[in-house]
Amino acid sequence: MQSDKINLLVTFDKNYIRPFEVMLKSLVTTNAKEMFHVWLLHSEIPIENLQELHEFCSEQRVTLTPIQVDRKIFKYAPISKQYPQEMYYRLLAPLLLPESIEKVLYIDPDILVINSIRPLWEIDLGDNTFAAASHSGVFDLMSDVNRVRLGQEHDYYNSGVILIDLIKARKLVKAEEIFDYVKTHAAELVLPDQDVFNFLYGDDTLQIDDTIWNFDPRYFTAYRLRSNGQCDMDWLMQNTVFLHFCGKKKPWKASYSNRFASLYKHYMNLTFRKTNE
Amino acid sequence: MQSDKINLLVTFDKNYIRPFEVMLKSLVTTNAKEMFHVWLLHSEIPIENLQELHEFCSEQRVTLTPIQVDRKIFKYAPISKQYPQEMYYRLLAPLLLPESIEKVLYIDPDILVINSIRPLWEIDLGDNTFAAASHSGVFDLMSDVNRVRLGQEHDYYNSGVILIDLIKARKLVKAEEIFDYVKTHAAELVLPDQDVFNFLYGDDTLQIDDTIWNFDPRYFTAYRLRSNGQCDMDWLMQNTVFLHFCGKKKPWKASYSNRFASLYKHYMNLTFRKTNE
Repeated sequence: MQSDKINLLVTFDKNYIRPFEVMLKSLVTTNAKEMFHVWLLHSEIPIENLQELHEFCSEQRVTLTPIQVDRKIFKYAPISKQYPQEMYYRLLAPLLLPESIEKVLYIDPDILVINSIRPLWEIDLGDNTFAAASHSGVFDLMSDVNRVRLGQEHDYYNSGVILIDLIKARKLVKAEEIFDYVKTHAAELVLPDQDVFNFLYGDDTLQIDDTIWNFDPRYFTAYRLRSNGQCDMDWLMQNTVFLHFCGKKKPWKASYSNRFASLYKHYMNLTFRKTNE
Repeated sequence: MQSDKINLLVTFDKNYIRPFEVMLKSLVTTNAKEMFHVWLLHSEIPIENLQELHEFCSEQRVTLTPIQVDRKIFKYAPISKQYPQEMYYRLLAPLLLPESIEKVLYIDPDILVINSIRPLWEIDLGDNTFAAASHSGVFDLMSDVNRVRLGQEHDYYNSGVILIDLIKARKLVKAEEIFDYVKTHAAELVLPDQDVFNFLYGDDTLQIDDTIWNFDPRYFTAYRLRSNGQCDMDWLMQNTVFLHFCGKKKPWKASYSNRFASLYKHYMNLTFRKTNE
């Protein structure tokens, strides 16, 4: 058993409860000796769903603390079905989580955790407040487009996995600044929360290796090519920690069928099968 | 915790220790509430490897009993690198295992266990002594060829998964009969132990569904077609228990790359990674 509990931050609506549970099942299976405290920032997950979540987390020996956020706070933010309001909560987390928490790891629910997350938890952030990965390189043109679009020097970070030094972030993050940015740029925001994160905090972010910390399975072949063949399936299974199923084709759909489908769907089954043996 | 311990029979040489460990890791992960006793019939696994096996099994909370079989017993059997002598031990298991054991499940080491094995353990064998699956159907021509070759009425059974009622088998199985059959048919035996099993005991075998109990990943597309689309990846992950990686392309090789590679290699990593978290 490791000495310190790892704090995780998640933010989703009730449509993402099941993917979250698969993510958590994979996390506790592949990080069996760790202790986790999950902080859930949400707006209106019904009480019966929260009760289910509590039971599920308890079975996985994970502590869950849901924190209900007032929807009014974000009434000027652009929202849509694809980008629910909950996606912004990661930006406000430093202001919404208890003062006693010094560090938190935000994880999207469309992620499978397949190796130890401790190296990220213990990473030296230096002067940075955040750590995140970028899907840069030839295989993700949008990453370069977004960098130019936002007029940024740094790579365009994916906001699906963010380590947050809350002590520093509480000084850096101002709710008004986020609201102002969203209001001013509402029309041009493509991936709203990610755009805001990159524009406001990109310079305060330590870049981490996306092959390890934010691997996008859609680009398996491109990663392998970029690495001169090193990143084959053996290497990925031994080294990658977060498989991040970005994009509209989600692995929990029956139609999802690539080389990572068996792995994701196996964890789905371990999570939801009736005889939980 | 289930009430009765499940007895497993494995037989391999030292080259298959690592695949066996992956099989066992997948078994205990997906059958976490079961208790297992593994009986290993072998000839000459070195003592240091046996010690490692004991430690590995102990970490997985599995009891291991190695039984060393005298190589002389099988001196008239046809053996080759592809079909090591150890493959015959499953036939003699009723005579080699302690009298106190009433039932045992033989499993090949090139198998991944992804769901509960209890339904097979508790299956009603009726008048039969064994239960096994056949890779019959259009996609495995060899199964039909072998049936005709051996002049059998029943399907040609794959001997990679066999449930054995040891009480009945101790009356049925005669060492001399096996030796005589092998000596007489040595020239024409293609898959020696499997041929012997089919010829001598095929009529005493209950046929079980290969989609569940002996799924050959090479024929994923054919299984799906045969089932009118029902056996897609979701169905397999929810229902299949044994993925049996038949044939020469083995999933632990770096070159192995099909839609089940991520799942197998993930379990390889869970089995062998240094920080066993």
